[in-house]
Amino acid sequence: MVSYDRIMKLSLERGFYFPSSEIYSDSPAGFWEYGPNGNNIKNKFIELWRRELVRRDDMIEIDGSQIMSKNVFVASGHIDNFSDPVIVCSKCKSIFRADKFILETAGIDVPERVPNNEVDKILNQYNLKCPKCLSSFQQTERFNMMFKVGIGPNNDEAYLRPETCQTIFVDFTRIFKIMRGKLPVPIAQVGKSFRNEVAPRQSLLRLREFYQAEIEVFCNPNQLDAISKFDDIQDTTLTIDEGTKVSKLTAKEALDNQIIPNKLIGYYLSILYEFYEKTGIDMNQTRFRKLSDQEKAFYATIALDFEVKTSLGWLELVACNYRSDYDLSQHSKISREKMEIMDPVTNEKILPHVFELSLGVDRSIYSILEHSFAEDHENKRVVLKLKPYLAPILGAILPLVKKPELEEIAKNIYCNLKKDFDMYYDGSGSIGRRYRRLEEIGVPFAITVDYDTLKDSTVTIRYRDTMEQRRIKIKDLKSFFEINKKP
Amino acid sequence: MVSYDRIMKLSLERGFYFPSSEIYSDSPAGFWEYGPNGNNIKNKFIELWRRELVRRDDMIEIDGSQIMSKNVFVASGHIDNFSDPVIVCSKCKSIFRADKFILETAGIDVPERVPNNEVDKILNQYNLKCPKCLSSFQQTERFNMMFKVGIGPNNDEAYLRPETCQTIFVDFTRIFKIMRGKLPVPIAQVGKSFRNEVAPRQSLLRLREFYQAEIEVFCNPNQLDAISKFDDIQDTTLTIDEGTKVSKLTAKEALDNQIIPNKLIGYYLSILYEFYEKTGIDMNQTRFRKLSDQEKAFYATIALDFEVKTSLGWLELVACNYRSDYDLSQHSKISREKMEIMDPVTNEKILPHVFELSLGVDRSIYSILEHSFAEDHENKRVVLKLKPYLAPILGAILPLVKKPELEEIAKNIYCNLKKDFDMYYDGSGSIGRRYRRLEEIGVPFAITVDYDTLKDSTVTIRYRDTMEQRRIKIKDLKSFFEINKKP
Repeated sequence: MVSYDRIMKLSLERGFYFPSSEIYSDSPAGFWEYGPNGNNIKNKFIELWRRELVRRDDMIEIDGSQIMSKNVFVASGHIDNFSDPVIVCSKCKSIFRADKFILETAGIDVPERVPNNEVDKILNQYNLKCPKCLSSFQQTERFNMMFKVGIGPNNDEAYLRPETCQTIFVDFTRIFKIMRGKLPVPIAQVGKSFRNEVAPRQSLLRLREFYQAEIEVFCNPNQLDAISKFDDIQDTTLTIDEGTKVSKLTAKEALDNQIIPNKLIGYYLSILYEFYEKTGIDMNQTRFRKLSDQEKAFYATIALDFEVKTSLGWLELVACNYRSDYDLSQHSKISREKMEIMDPVTNEKILPHVFELSLGVDRSIYSILEHSFAEDHENKRVVLKLKPYLAPILGAILPLVKKPELEEIAKNIYCNLKKDFDMYYDGSGSIGRRYRRLEEIGVPFAITVDYDTLKDSTVTIRYRDTMEQRRIKIKDLKSFFEINKKP
Repeated sequence: MVSYDRIMKLSLERGFYFPSSEIYSDSPAGFWEYGPNGNNIKNKFIELWRRELVRRDDMIEIDGSQIMSKNVFVASGHIDNFSDPVIVCSKCKSIFRADKFILETAGIDVPERVPNNEVDKILNQYNLKCPKCLSSFQQTERFNMMFKVGIGPNNDEAYLRPETCQTIFVDFTRIFKIMRGKLPVPIAQVGKSFRNEVAPRQSLLRLREFYQAEIEVFCNPNQLDAISKFDDIQDTTLTIDEGTKVSKLTAKEALDNQIIPNKLIGYYLSILYEFYEKTGIDMNQTRFRKLSDQEKAFYATIALDFEVKTSLGWLELVACNYRSDYDLSQHSKISREKMEIMDPVTNEKILPHVFELSLGVDRSIYSILEHSFAEDHENKRVVLKLKPYLAPILGAILPLVKKPELEEIAKNIYCNLKKDFDMYYDGSGSIGRRYRRLEEIGVPFAITVDYDTLKDSTVTIRYRDTMEQRRIKIKDLKSFFEINKKP
């Protein structure tokens, strides 16, 4: 398995991602930029998510503000509950995140939501001191992870959203009315969220500013098994880790054995699974893991994490939470807006429950890079085996040698294709070295213009993974790329 | 011309956009959400921008963090200069933006960058008082329009970026190195920016959180006329308002008459113009306006605004600024990072200059809606004549009547198309009423399944603008939409 450091090296050298504002020494940790290649992969990943989840399931997608008023987060519980335990050295005032510090110094794995007095007890029991000055710590404190912003000249209190879904909850009644929906109604949103982590780390894996693609399925809690589309996915094979045992079984078997509580949850886990199958992640290295009560977010009654195995261990990509009516009832209470709706199918007046698929985009991109990375020792090359529809560049146009007559044709081909596809023109360096550069960033097809092109208007297509070469007519290139850019 | 209020009504009713967190009374002004239809138009507009500017011109696109460290904005000048003049009532402490207040009460048009003592003088001269309590104002103050955020437990000072381009400047050297570029190198970015407006207003037109699509062209200041691709666009007709006179002329004529200072600027204004031609905005209602020295942003040496005429008057959509080496030299000075590069063409060591196209996405969307809105009195219908590639829904599938045999075929057609295209299924209500609903949100094609479909596997395509109807084979629908979703 390729190492985290190797992927980082590739990313820095080839423009997948790099630290934000790195020329400034005061740049805070936990902020990263997508370079040209990473940005393309990220955008194509989101497009695949739209195709295989949003459009497949007739979801509604919105795009809301990142700054939201204080009351939104009073209602959501984030003002009170969204905090990390931190410990401050009584002498040098160094600050540490308590759970991480305890894991690293005493080897004890405490959950993020560990109560303050529990932390104090462990610090005492194991006699843990400040590693910088060896003094003892003050009493454990809570550090709220939301970024506060002041609005207008009166500095009104507001926050950067710590999860995109709050927009969906507060907008639910208007959207439901506009879209004349039938429950279950899934509403999706992709965008930035912000968490003021005490200890951000590992580039894309724990960011302070990150992309989420969230889906909130509003449903009638009495109709969770009335999902006929479950039949379409009942044979999808899922791996579910219940803590005590790991099972690999179909969605139907999982339902029959009560490993999945209802058809609605089974359906959405399955289409999520089918989406990730298309990303190129090795699905044998994935699982749904049921969370213990201590691990679950404060709003979740049932929680499964979709995880993928990487060189750093299991990594959570998607939190799948049954949030019950927690969000709508809280927003209804604090805003005094009635949020019940008539279920047009059963004619009941209900406050919908919510099942969510909260997907981390940046972590998914990282996992795709790791799972696509291959070292082909025989041919001394590094190949990023990205699916063509996720590759930053779909095809490169290369004149075999630097001759005006070949360059002219190559440039013409490039100009005819570049608006419709992400293409790249590379005219300099030995052909072998150009192939190497393209393989390393995952370009699936290289088109070479050579002297035969002058005779018969054909070019060579070279396939990245197999290195196989085929002749194709120039006029057929457009339809070749049209077919190959689709999943 | 349709009114602002009519577009607002449509937007609220049909899910183009609506106020953020509207169920909360403490929701701050200046934040709006894109509903399902608006979100689709916005995404397709950005895709068109990518196609017609980024990919057409071989630009590099990145996506960086919105939160940036304090020093970035010390260097950029925003800490010192990015402020509005505000006046505070000495008694009731009401706050007003000085330039707007003076315009509304005394009818005097002062620029945003008016100095404080100038404001004090005008208030005095015209005896302007607080409209709430009739008391006089305190001395004029500056209100910085950046949102401050504190990072980590030490609350390190950082800001939400007020323009996306700062990311591009601070990342320039790394990107230039990775991409082995030749000057001019255009780097593009689309994303959110944030301005803490004193008086946000008019929904998408003056937001506190908004989308920008910015292009920064890094160039050798000695080579601004060495742009051979100028020849491709030299016949593009531009309307240029110089304040004293308005000229409609080709890019070449503008260059020859020194209305445009060099080929580089002429080229980018022209491809910007050609991009907007494809959005459906009436180009006879647009102009490039040269800004006076008082109007220009503090970093600009040459500034032209691309403006469009709306029901509210002329609206700035794109600021085209020649920023010289202001940004790179400032960032180089404050970060102490060397930012000169070797121009691989001329072999000079230079600090590149920058010409930018800073495009407001939300205002563009608003303008497109206004220019696409048509009331067809004869047929008693409202039609949003959006270009098919910008329409929120490309096609709708309608069973003519609610009969299982028609519904089954219609649903099959819908399911076969919906992953590849934004499709909509509408099975209820009279066919006339369904057409009206689709026309109002700009769906260009309605596909009707009727009893003939059962016989010959054809359906009707109804064209939104002409109401013309044609029969087409079901199996040809995919290629019909494939062709029609492209510009």
